[in-house]
Amino acid sequence: MSLEAVLTRIDDDLDAALERLMSFVRIPSISTDPAYAKDCQRAADWMVADLASMGVEAEARPTQGHPMVVGHVGEGAPHLLFYGHYDVQPVDPIELWHRDPFDPAIEDTEHGKVIRGRGPADDKGQLMTFVEACRAWKAVHGAWPCKITFLFEGEEESGSPSLIPFLATNKEELSAPDMALICDTGMFDRETPAICTMLRGLLGEELVVTGPDKDLHSGSFGGAAINPARVLARIIASLHDNTGRVTVPGFYDGVSELPDEIRAQWDKLGFDADAFLGSVGLSKPAGEDGRSALEQIWARPTCEVNGIWSGYTGDGFKTVLPSKASAKISFRLVGTQDPFAIRKSFRAMVSDALPPDCTVEFKDHGAGPASVMSTERPIFEQARAALSDEWPKEAAFIGGGGSIPIAGLFKEMLELDSMLIGFGQDDDGLHSPNEKYDLRSFHKGARSWARVLDAVTR
Amino acid sequence: MSLEAVLTRIDDDLDAALERLMSFVRIPSISTDPAYAKDCQRAADWMVADLASMGVEAEARPTQGHPMVVGHVGEGAPHLLFYGHYDVQPVDPIELWHRDPFDPAIEDTEHGKVIRGRGPADDKGQLMTFVEACRAWKAVHGAWPCKITFLFEGEEESGSPSLIPFLATNKEELSAPDMALICDTGMFDRETPAICTMLRGLLGEELVVTGPDKDLHSGSFGGAAINPARVLARIIASLHDNTGRVTVPGFYDGVSELPDEIRAQWDKLGFDADAFLGSVGLSKPAGEDGRSALEQIWARPTCEVNGIWSGYTGDGFKTVLPSKASAKISFRLVGTQDPFAIRKSFRAMVSDALPPDCTVEFKDHGAGPASVMSTERPIFEQARAALSDEWPKEAAFIGGGGSIPIAGLFKEMLELDSMLIGFGQDDDGLHSPNEKYDLRSFHKGARSWARVLDAVTR
Repeated sequence: MSLEAVLTRIDDDLDAALERLMSFVRIPSISTDPAYAKDCQRAADWMVADLASMGVEAEARPTQGHPMVVGHVGEGAPHLLFYGHYDVQPVDPIELWHRDPFDPAIEDTEHGKVIRGRGPADDKGQLMTFVEACRAWKAVHGAWPCKITFLFEGEEESGSPSLIPFLATNKEELSAPDMALICDTGMFDRETPAICTMLRGLLGEELVVTGPDKDLHSGSFGGAAINPARVLARIIASLHDNTGRVTVPGFYDGVSELPDEIRAQWDKLGFDADAFLGSVGLSKPAGEDGRSALEQIWARPTCEVNGIWSGYTGDGFKTVLPSKASAKISFRLVGTQDPFAIRKSFRAMVSDALPPDCTVEFKDHGAGPASVMSTERPIFEQARAALSDEWPKEAAFIGGGGSIPIAGLFKEMLELDSMLIGFGQDDDGLHSPNEKYDLRSFHKGARSWARVLDAVTR
Repeated sequence: MSLEAVLTRIDDDLDAALERLMSFVRIPSISTDPAYAKDCQRAADWMVADLASMGVEAEARPTQGHPMVVGHVGEGAPHLLFYGHYDVQPVDPIELWHRDPFDPAIEDTEHGKVIRGRGPADDKGQLMTFVEACRAWKAVHGAWPCKITFLFEGEEESGSPSLIPFLATNKEELSAPDMALICDTGMFDRETPAICTMLRGLLGEELVVTGPDKDLHSGSFGGAAINPARVLARIIASLHDNTGRVTVPGFYDGVSELPDEIRAQWDKLGFDADAFLGSVGLSKPAGEDGRSALEQIWARPTCEVNGIWSGYTGDGFKTVLPSKASAKISFRLVGTQDPFAIRKSFRAMVSDALPPDCTVEFKDHGAGPASVMSTERPIFEQARAALSDEWPKEAAFIGGGGSIPIAGLFKEMLELDSMLIGFGQDDDGLHSPNEKYDLRSFHKGARSWARVLDAVTR
């Protein structure tokens, strides 16, 4: 009966919970842009204050970058560590937003009400589902369900540079929990909750190809001077073969074929590739030949151009022959692919491809291997049952195309297993203009966590 | 003796002439950027006022874009039309300038004093060499050497969109002259003046490749969604074969091998390809295999990437899978290459190369064929002799890699032949940061025009 009371409390408190989320989203905590450093601090302070309002003595602990918010409450087993991130992605191209990304609002859509703005889906609204579940639990019971450690990061969207040093420095404190809960993933579809048990890794690289030592007039020098934009285009074009496979030597070392039982489970999900691609204006899976779209995004590695720039990019025309051409390139990794070996091989491949008179510089934008979760632990099945009670369809163990390096770091540095439960939808527009989070995800997400807390502490 | 008096007058007036040029360069008349429209008007008004100060009643005549400055003075044959442009290139990347581009100054360099800023070489200082020669002539003689029409354009750096309508509307007025003089080219080297008798044409294209209908998270969609930056890179990489030839179908129609007599004349010039490339940090001609650097820049057509952009290009990293990828691409044309046929073929080639789910949009940034001058007219030899009198070495007929479509338009629309004489140097940094114009070019340039005016009116 007490679970019912917590769920009712969540229902009754929804408007206040939304107000809290709105004030959180209003803080433009863009971690990758130094111009927003103070806003990241404000977001950390907001978290500390919000946790304090429900009785958690948390702190915003300084790092070399943005602060870590850490707090401990409660007694008893299991000891759960809850992780989320309070930073958000940049908002550009800002002109494609139909409202100020940091002036969020509830909007009606064909799929119901949504919270529109930068960050409610990734990850402010998601992390608040857990916080709101805890708040309701405490209000109803006057006590916490078990021992809980809160850990909120402010650099997830910028490669988490401070995380490894922070985990190392606070290893004793943070390795005490039995299990980490991470709310930064999505449901399988609007009816089917999911626990993500496979996550792709991420390797981020930036390269700058330099040809002439200054920008040149393409009339005076065109034809005789090497053009680094052309060189970069050739390099990028060479990164995939005509079947969509990545050509970096050794790239597929550690990539296994999907086990038959996983493939069978995924087949049962009835993934609608046409709808998935159709939601973003596409019709055909564009990855490796002969792989389904689901396999391409959950179980296959990729190489993508995330940004490219060279020469004159403003209005009008400028007949410049550029001195430099740059690209940001990322690799999604699966299985036991070694990001450091791939970085080395990629850099060697690019360097070897340079024509005379060109040089290249590389910048490291983070490297994390793929994660595979320990689904044999009973807590996974307990959580799956609890989620199935809340939503119309049975919860599924799924893969995830994105990279949440924290799960790998928890395992590697703290020997801490992670369970990833989230309530995002495919159309949330993560990292895109007009990001939103379904109000239903926020509300039923909080209810879901209450059920999970109940199930794992019963 | 009267020529000597004009030359002396130019020498004595140099400081005042420099002051005039400085105040002209201080006007940021960047024609391609709408933010500087008022500055383009100011530059036109400055020209009108400067011409008025020497007794030329000129007007800044409105067009759909920036004004045309037109004025007529003098009597007698030949009737010369003098053309220059008062607009300048954008200044980005601004961080590479060592001073404010619109706060020009005289600086000492290893090759003597230079005027540093945006525009003294292209084309404000160059056009003022002619104006200063006329001013001195008038001051000494109290009359003009012949009938002169001044025509100064403000859109040369942005494709001259208003020029064709203006020439059409004012055809009767502007086709009266016997010959056009254009000062927007360079010397062969610091000692050797030059008349440019071959100019490459220019075709400017912008393309935007669209894949997904919005920017995507590369984790959620990477592997399954087409990436337009990769598509664009493949298209650009396909525009040249491995010998450096352009692959656009029909591109070389109208491109002839250099006649033996021209090749012999150019060989005699002793062009130092190592020094030319070395001045911009390069060592090897990067164009078509088996062609000299001089041939590559004067006599061979090219295809260059002038700008490319897609996705996230700011600091840090953003794992976006972009919706769009754009490029500005230009073709330098020679002989009788047809820019309109090449545009059509290029667009068809790009469209045919698109994978499923991608679309492309094109933007036209101007098209002009190559120009070949009528060097058999006696005025060319008269001018060549006059230039040879002013400079240490004999003047040469040379080619030009850049594109000055005005010469072709004068011929086509006004049946007016052009003679291109300029005093720029290879290291002027046209279109680049830290553009400069040699003080010697400015001074001896004005003296050169006085000699040319004397020679052709004697």
